[in-house]
Amino acid sequence: MKKTVGIIGANGYTGSELIRLLAYHPEVEMTCLFSRSNSGVKISELYPDLAGICDLVLTNELQKVDILFLCLPHKESQNWLTQNPIDAEVLVIDLGNDFRLEADFNNRKFIYGLPEINKTEIQSTKSIANPGCFATAIQLALLPLAEAGLLTDVYTTGITGSTGAGQKLQSTTHFTWRNDNISAYKTLTHQHVEEILMNLNSKSSNDVKLNFVPWRGDFARGIFTSSTIKCDKSLEEIKTLFQDFYKEAKFVQVTDGHLDMKQVVNTNKCVIEIEQNEGFIVVHSAIDNLLKGASGQAVQNMNLAMGWDETLGLNLKPIAF
Amino acid sequence: MKKTVGIIGANGYTGSELIRLLAYHPEVEMTCLFSRSNSGVKISELYPDLAGICDLVLTNELQKVDILFLCLPHKESQNWLTQNPIDAEVLVIDLGNDFRLEADFNNRKFIYGLPEINKTEIQSTKSIANPGCFATAIQLALLPLAEAGLLTDVYTTGITGSTGAGQKLQSTTHFTWRNDNISAYKTLTHQHVEEILMNLNSKSSNDVKLNFVPWRGDFARGIFTSSTIKCDKSLEEIKTLFQDFYKEAKFVQVTDGHLDMKQVVNTNKCVIEIEQNEGFIVVHSAIDNLLKGASGQAVQNMNLAMGWDETLGLNLKPIAF
Amino acid sequence: MKKTVGIIGANGYTGSELIRLLAYHPEVEMTCLFSRSNSGVKISELYPDLAGICDLVLTNELQKVDILFLCLPHKESQNWLTQNPIDAEVLVIDLGNDFRLEADFNNRKFIYGLPEINKTEIQSTKSIANPGCFATAIQLALLPLAEAGLLTDVYTTGITGSTGAGQKLQSTTHFTWRNDNISAYKTLTHQHVEEILMNLNSKSSNDVKLNFVPWRGDFARGIFTSSTIKCDKSLEEIKTLFQDFYKEAKFVQVTDGHLDMKQVVNTNKCVIEIEQNEGFIVVHSAIDNLLKGASGQAVQNMNLAMGWDETLGLNLKPIAF
Amino acid sequence: MKKTVGIIGANGYTGSELIRLLAYHPEVEMTCLFSRSNSGVKISELYPDLAGICDLVLTNELQKVDILFLCLPHKESQNWLTQNPIDAEVLVIDLGNDFRLEADFNNRKFIYGLPEINKTEIQSTKSIANPGCFATAIQLALLPLAEAGLLTDVYTTGITGSTGAGQKLQSTTHFTWRNDNISAYKTLTHQHVEEILMNLNSKSSNDVKLNFVPWRGDFARGIFTSSTIKCDKSLEEIKTLFQDFYKEAKFVQVTDGHLDMKQVVNTNKCVIEIEQNEGFIVVHSAIDNLLKGASGQAVQNMNLAMGWDETLGLNLKPIAF
Repeated sequence: MKKTVGIIGANGYTGSELIRLLAYHPEVEMTCLFSRSNSGVKISELYPDLAGICDLVLTNELQKVDILFLCLPHKESQNWLTQNPIDAEVLVIDLGNDFRLEADFNNRKFIYGLPEINKTEIQSTKSIANPGCFATAIQLALLPLAEAGLLTDVYTTGITGSTGAGQKLQSTTHFTWRNDNISAYKTLTHQHVEEILMNLNSKSSNDVKLNFVPWRGDFARGIFTSSTIKCDKSLEEIKTLFQDFYKEAKFVQVTDGHLDMKQVVNTNKCVIEIEQNEGFIVVHSAIDNLLKGASGQAVQNMNLAMGWDETLGLNLKPIAF
Repeated sequence: MKKTVGIIGANGYTGSELIRLLAYHPEVEMTCLFSRSNSGVKISELYPDLAGICDLVLTNELQKVDILFLCLPHKESQNWLTQNPIDAEVLVIDLGNDFRLEADFNNRKFIYGLPEINKTEIQSTKSIANPGCFATAIQLALLPLAEAGLLTDVYTTGITGSTGAGQKLQSTTHFTWRNDNISAYKTLTHQHVEEILMNLNSKSSNDVKLNFVPWRGDFARGIFTSSTIKCDKSLEEIKTLFQDFYKEAKFVQVTDGHLDMKQVVNTNKCVIEIEQNEGFIVVHSAIDNLLKGASGQAVQNMNLAMGWDETLGLNLKPIAF
Repeated sequence: MKKTVGIIGANGYTGSELIRLLAYHPEVEMTCLFSRSNSGVKISELYPDLAGICDLVLTNELQKVDILFLCLPHKESQNWLTQNPIDAEVLVIDLGNDFRLEADFNNRKFIYGLPEINKTEIQSTKSIANPGCFATAIQLALLPLAEAGLLTDVYTTGITGSTGAGQKLQSTTHFTWRNDNISAYKTLTHQHVEEILMNLNSKSSNDVKLNFVPWRGDFARGIFTSSTIKCDKSLEEIKTLFQDFYKEAKFVQVTDGHLDMKQVVNTNKCVIEIEQNEGFIVVHSAIDNLLKGASGQAVQNMNLAMGWDETLGLNLKPIAF
Repeated sequence: MKKTVGIIGANGYTGSELIRLLAYHPEVEMTCLFSRSNSGVKISELYPDLAGICDLVLTNELQKVDILFLCLPHKESQNWLTQNPIDAEVLVIDLGNDFRLEADFNNRKFIYGLPEINKTEIQSTKSIANPGCFATAIQLALLPLAEAGLLTDVYTTGITGSTGAGQKLQSTTHFTWRNDNISAYKTLTHQHVEEILMNLNSKSSNDVKLNFVPWRGDFARGIFTSSTIKCDKSLEEIKTLFQDFYKEAKFVQVTDGHLDMKQVVNTNKCVIEIEQNEGFIVVHSAIDNLLKGASGQAVQNMNLAMGWDETLGLNLKPIAF
């Protein structure tokens, strides 16, 4: 019998993207699409691409489910869980940042849901804190180096699509402004730096310092990052390090070719390219911010926690063009 | 046991898109990716998004297969079949325009592969001429009206993405030129008009005249068309007509909401919106030119011809954003 | 001495575009940038591209000026003029649609500001109703045919950039939605049809009927239209007709090449291409919706009404790419 | 009397952009648009936006002019000057990189044409090596820090539009590939690093090391760069440093607001934003790669070398949207 799924905040971007994934997932059935603001509305009226794929009506009445995804604005998951106590046997996956740094909440202990480092823990938990989008792309680019003790100062630039900013209308998501435009935001102060460093430093013998400059891109989906690091190793050594680190990873690839962001758009992949020059290496990484950076990774985590094949429901056709 | 598939011209856009679809199709196995120009190269080197999805090497040696897709430039399929005789029991699906108007070739008789009108014939053939992209979008917008005898003069504008022009480098596919740009091409003389009229007129008691103005759009994937027709019927009557016509269609939807092109991008759907004003109706339709307009429809046709579920391998996650 | 200029609604898109033009106009000085909502703010804080070009502070106190541009939301110009009586000798140019169809208001009689047909009247008036953007592009494509009595039923599709929808945040101007997207709106009911027909019918011996399907495009600036008309004349005859009609026009070109929209972006030009096939002609036209479609044409009208060279301040570098 | 101008390589992007600027420049007249490959063709056939602005015919016969711009592929200017000796009194401005690092050629000594540091030298020379596009954006972001001895290791990411790659058709300028895509190229090895360091090190008491990661952007025009530097100064001190350094600069602005790239597109401006956090500063800069990054700066240099107002012909309307 299929497991039942509830999505809290189903009307947002990550919520709707979860629906796109779960509608074709063989082991689950969505039974509760929870939304306070759009209760009573069909999800396919808000997201017409879902017509015929999922035509459930959003509700503000919580039903009992086996698996619960929280797709709420950051800092609202704690409130929500306080107001709506969830049984201990329900798998809770939070896509916000409420439990990434502070894992303990009520009787739950949240596991940081990056399968490439925490697979075992994820497989035996009922509480998962799904990583941030930039946090995923940057950590996957740096973790092998951290573990090898090769990281000290890191200089990273990352660019993200407009879906990263959510569906709220803002001057910086106005088409007229954003089209053909590039800008920086939260320079050196992005909220994901803390969760990145938490993990890098737990792996690293050195103290890692991350200087991260995020940019807004003129596209809807995707993240591309480049990190520059002082490092005397050869390109060959670094590549071997990465390939070893990711040899069990289902969704991370280290390419020998040239990386471009669209290679991963509409997939759950992270692709990494490494380059080297005169004592420095640069690691590029790309993900789809809504998939490996949010809802896709949440499904990957669900698969692991439920004991299913890690790739179930995630064999997605790339957009490619 | 899985059926074996060969793709002739696997290195082009429609060929590679077929690979993206068939890689996850449960009933088939690709065994022969044929390409004269890129023989010996891994397909995932040409299309890095395919890394880990399909890493087959392109070949110029034909192998025996159960199903053969021809993804050649228009007018080259005939030559190819002449030079490479194919057994009668092999299912041949041609994505070019060689057999759309002239169905008879050697001992084969090609069926025009638009499942919404030819499902029965497709289910019992070994030779399918896959429709053109604009031809699919425009026919699906007009067929119910043709059948009802409501079409005479039709005025259609359609816009297509750059993938419609193929991978060849041309001045009109140069990013610098095409970005933020709109232009018309083949005004009133597009090659798809003939195949559209062939079908409309076979359904229609009147003589249908189609004035079609194609535009080049500043996006990679998708087709959007609007057709204006003199018609005294009420909106309600027209909608009922369409809903009846498409009640068995798995991939055609008549929306009561507002259509925008991205509702169908990266899916095999065609969505249709109908509007009415003072004796005129306007029918809008949208497809993904590489999917319902090419490779997706080819898979749909394969499914029907092989007796499989029509939607197999075509439950695609929409790009949505 | 320079003439003084006031702009009412200087904080909107057309207002700010006027500032970009007038800042470098040799005969005028902006002395009053009026905005109720942003009073006290430097215009270059709202539009940082204006830094160093125009750093005036927006005000809600009206000052006496020689020339007044109204850049208000449609239907607010009448209210504004009622509440703020303007001396008869002040040149008033309204960019809204308040006086295009009803020319008489208080003691003023507004001239429809399309210089290609009303140059003489514009040169001797103090009240100008600046045409709409689609209205400009479509009329310029059709007027020579109307005058020659060759128009009856016209089928037009036009596409417009996001700036046409103004700076207000709307779901259809959200980058995530609009990027790579096409959609229709106000099908057959666009508000510009009436002003187009007013002029076409005043020139035409026949009754002209316009079926206009407007599309939203995934670019910020520009309009491209294609109009299909039954017509037995040769291409040569039609081209001669257009060239004669526009022989005095400073900003209208009939091209012998292929038109693409970016040829006119960031200029005050309208370029027209004509094609012909089997008893039908198609006329394509392109303008920048904020320039020839709004603020540029307003400056052109000002130049004419003030007795200056028609092109003053309008020799703009095309964006081209 | 106007000075005569010749453009060698007038058929390329920078050549055509020069024509757009010089067509409206009050002191010059273009008399020789030289192109070997397109001789005999009207420039406005190649670039239809130029119709009515400049309709000169390209020629392969050199004529005597007062001012000569070389817009040739990199490394071809030397050959060209060898084969076509130019009188010493002719002002030669080379837009390639032939004379940026090696200033001496035949009897000429080329001045590096960055007016913000070499204005006096430019005013008294007949030979100017126009800087590279990234070189301009990055130097303007770093020069005040270099002069103050605050630079050692610099980490810079920059993104450039497709016009930076020229008009040649390449896989990385194919619309289908580049649209919505981001990629890195020439990581740490971009050819502009050398000219940047030449100038930074000539100003700096320290040895400056630049780690530069260039990205390809999905837009046609513009460059945006972010440079991260260890620095203990306060934001206030750094801003004062920059404002002092650029107090005479006509086209460089240090903004107190937020920089986005479109603030400078279609202008000759460079805008700089500075941010600071815990011992690090980040300097963002933006230019239009074809204007301040190429042809606009060439005109600025011409103005200075000819003793004209530095801004002549460069009061350009920003695209803004």
